[in-house]
Amino acid sequence: MKTQMEYARAGTVTEKMRLAALEARIDPDELCLNIASGSTLICHNNRHSNGRPLAVGKGIRTRVNANIGTSRDDTSIERELAKAHTAVRAGADALMDLSTGGPIDQIRQAIIREIPTCIGSVPLYQAACECVRQGKPIVAMTVDDIFAGIKKHLDDGVDFITVHCGVTRRTLEIMDREGRVMEVVSRGGSFTCAWMEHNNQENPLYEQFDRLLDLVRPYDATLSLGDGFRPGSICDATDRAQIHELMLLGELTQKAWEKDIQVMIEGPGHVPLNQIRANIELQKRLCHGAPFYVLGPLVTDIAPGYDHITSAIGGALAAAAGADFLCYVTPSEHLCLPNEDDVHQGVMAARIAAHAADIALGLPGAMAWDKQMSTARKDLDWPAQYALALDPELARARRQATAEKADSHGGCTMCGEFCAYKLMNKRKENTC
Amino acid sequence: MKTQMEYARAGTVTEKMRLAALEARIDPDELCLNIASGSTLICHNNRHSNGRPLAVGKGIRTRVNANIGTSRDDTSIERELAKAHTAVRAGADALMDLSTGGPIDQIRQAIIREIPTCIGSVPLYQAACECVRQGKPIVAMTVDDIFAGIKKHLDDGVDFITVHCGVTRRTLEIMDREGRVMEVVSRGGSFTCAWMEHNNQENPLYEQFDRLLDLVRPYDATLSLGDGFRPGSICDATDRAQIHELMLLGELTQKAWEKDIQVMIEGPGHVPLNQIRANIELQKRLCHGAPFYVLGPLVTDIAPGYDHITSAIGGALAAAAGADFLCYVTPSEHLCLPNEDDVHQGVMAARIAAHAADIALGLPGAMAWDKQMSTARKDLDWPAQYALALDPELARARRQATAEKADSHGGCTMCGEFCAYKLMNKRKENTC
Repeated sequence: MKTQMEYARAGTVTEKMRLAALEARIDPDELCLNIASGSTLICHNNRHSNGRPLAVGKGIRTRVNANIGTSRDDTSIERELAKAHTAVRAGADALMDLSTGGPIDQIRQAIIREIPTCIGSVPLYQAACECVRQGKPIVAMTVDDIFAGIKKHLDDGVDFITVHCGVTRRTLEIMDREGRVMEVVSRGGSFTCAWMEHNNQENPLYEQFDRLLDLVRPYDATLSLGDGFRPGSICDATDRAQIHELMLLGELTQKAWEKDIQVMIEGPGHVPLNQIRANIELQKRLCHGAPFYVLGPLVTDIAPGYDHITSAIGGALAAAAGADFLCYVTPSEHLCLPNEDDVHQGVMAARIAAHAADIALGLPGAMAWDKQMSTARKDLDWPAQYALALDPELARARRQATAEKADSHGGCTMCGEFCAYKLMNKRKENTC
Repeated sequence: MKTQMEYARAGTVTEKMRLAALEARIDPDELCLNIASGSTLICHNNRHSNGRPLAVGKGIRTRVNANIGTSRDDTSIERELAKAHTAVRAGADALMDLSTGGPIDQIRQAIIREIPTCIGSVPLYQAACECVRQGKPIVAMTVDDIFAGIKKHLDDGVDFITVHCGVTRRTLEIMDREGRVMEVVSRGGSFTCAWMEHNNQENPLYEQFDRLLDLVRPYDATLSLGDGFRPGSICDATDRAQIHELMLLGELTQKAWEKDIQVMIEGPGHVPLNQIRANIELQKRLCHGAPFYVLGPLVTDIAPGYDHITSAIGGALAAAAGADFLCYVTPSEHLCLPNEDDVHQGVMAARIAAHAADIALGLPGAMAWDKQMSTARKDLDWPAQYALALDPELARARRQATAEKADSHGGCTMCGEFCAYKLMNKRKENTC
């Protein structure tokens, strides 16, 4: 069976491409060309029967992913499903289930069954959890355990899988030589480092990358090449370990494309504002234009409780510089597992960042939305303002809590009678 | 009596400069040089006996202002004082009282009496309110009413006053010719436009700028040259009216400096992300390096309820490009008057933007804070993380709500037992 990239390279616009182009409001032929070059991907596992193909990449509005999932400390399947529905209602384009606690197979399967959105996961967590449940340390995972974990997720219909293929013994050595404040903060990265050192072996996902490609191919799932060495402190950003891993991911991207497997690259992390553009431009060059999926970046480490904001700043800048896909960060980051409200706040902040970047990039339709809102605002047309708001319920609730006072003069309680819009509208009518 | 700028130009480091340098952790001689050139100012009205001089400008960490104040719909003096205290506790460097409802003189005086922070206001609101209370339209204000309103605020000890001196008949004509989605969204700007047209006269604050300088001089208050034509929609950003007004403000800056009066420039507003740097660079050139005080900028119009985030994105970028002073925007912007929680959220978001920019600018001590936090994080030292957090109470409350589960393993409920820090720390101890 052919992959989407194979079809695209033969110039065939498939039904998946047609559907994805429709959703993304772009031309299917252009989408097909970009899939062929690797600058855009269609994320959809052939087994995800109720799933919708999602286009991510060049010329497409910046996408937003919401991470959900249990940990040992919070294992409720109902809570995860509620979070999944909240994320989709808030407008997330994709969901990653990162569960490591409770009935993780059932949780993943329930999410895939209930949610038609694009779904991702980190299969290495599965292998690690099963080891621990059998009373063994993580480092006791076998290579076959790792690949079996991946197959399990693909069989369930996961559309994109994070695989930390660039975490190698050489990268770890490079990190140790330079030194870091926070070393490895990626869970998959830390598992892999511990495993390599304990077993005195290279990372099998790097060494046996062809085996991975052969495994993924029948599902036509997307490889999301994970950044195990992403900086977890702004002090560590853009160091030799991070860039060495990125170069390896570029090498693997070319290998995947040779076998017509779609790839995106995962990126930092914690990055000072002035280093963000360089990070994106470097990724685009080293990875030959593959879509870039960034976690944040968070522009400061000092604001736990507000990391949806620290990452919205970095995400907007990253997407305006060319990042294609933003992984949300919630207010609970660095403190606890997110609850439903955190998920909602996280998606909203990431969507603001994405939209701000789409405007900066001049994407068709992006600024038109703002123009409609501004017009409604000038006209003091509150129903239209609510309808156009990113979060209509919140906008309505905030104003309506004060509407009794405000409605007598049609404005809001901010300026009361001294409303600049009202004065300017009067000027138009010559009634000042 | 000499002004601070006069002393600085004579090479005299005053007590105010010494105090301001101490607070800003910079060298007093350097501060003195920068005050002499106008690139830094010390904000302090000689009548503000309990006030602390605040340095704003070149080489100084990005400052944050919180707007408070009543409107006709919400006139409680207690609520405004509570908001003022909330803003200061949250870390605002300055407060603007924009009251237009209730006992506005008493509110302003109470804030100045109770709060030792730098205080600003827009005296034109006072003159407009008094007109309306006398049953007259705003446009019936006399020139003397306008100057009397300014004097009243200066007598009370206001440290910086917004004066919309660049709103001229010519600027208005330029705006009308080009056309705008939102026209004038500044309250002071809209009052002035209506006044000029109704009275068929030029803006007295432009035409009689020397009178204004002579009025301000004995107080040594700072002129904050307001941007009446700031864009209120991203569609209107960086248009001819905005830039024409900015050029006028540059002209007035030179005039003020000739009389040793300190000046800052107010800036937009709603600006697409890709236009922010140009706006800052233009202001710095046209206004000869005068400090830039920006309201936002908001990078999109579509997120009412989240405008603390839309403005944190723009504010971080603006400050990294050279803006010196960020006016916060709260979640209630465009919907209603902020409550205490809005004020807290607004200050936090603006401080994040300011700090992210300080890191990008390489300001001494900025990244050191992040390094301390990252070290505490790696060490799973929760008390240190709370102490270092921008909002210690929130960080503590969020984690402690789940601490029962998390404390058994020392991490947090996010990753539970699969904590990358723990695994990496074990690696160091060779106990993987």
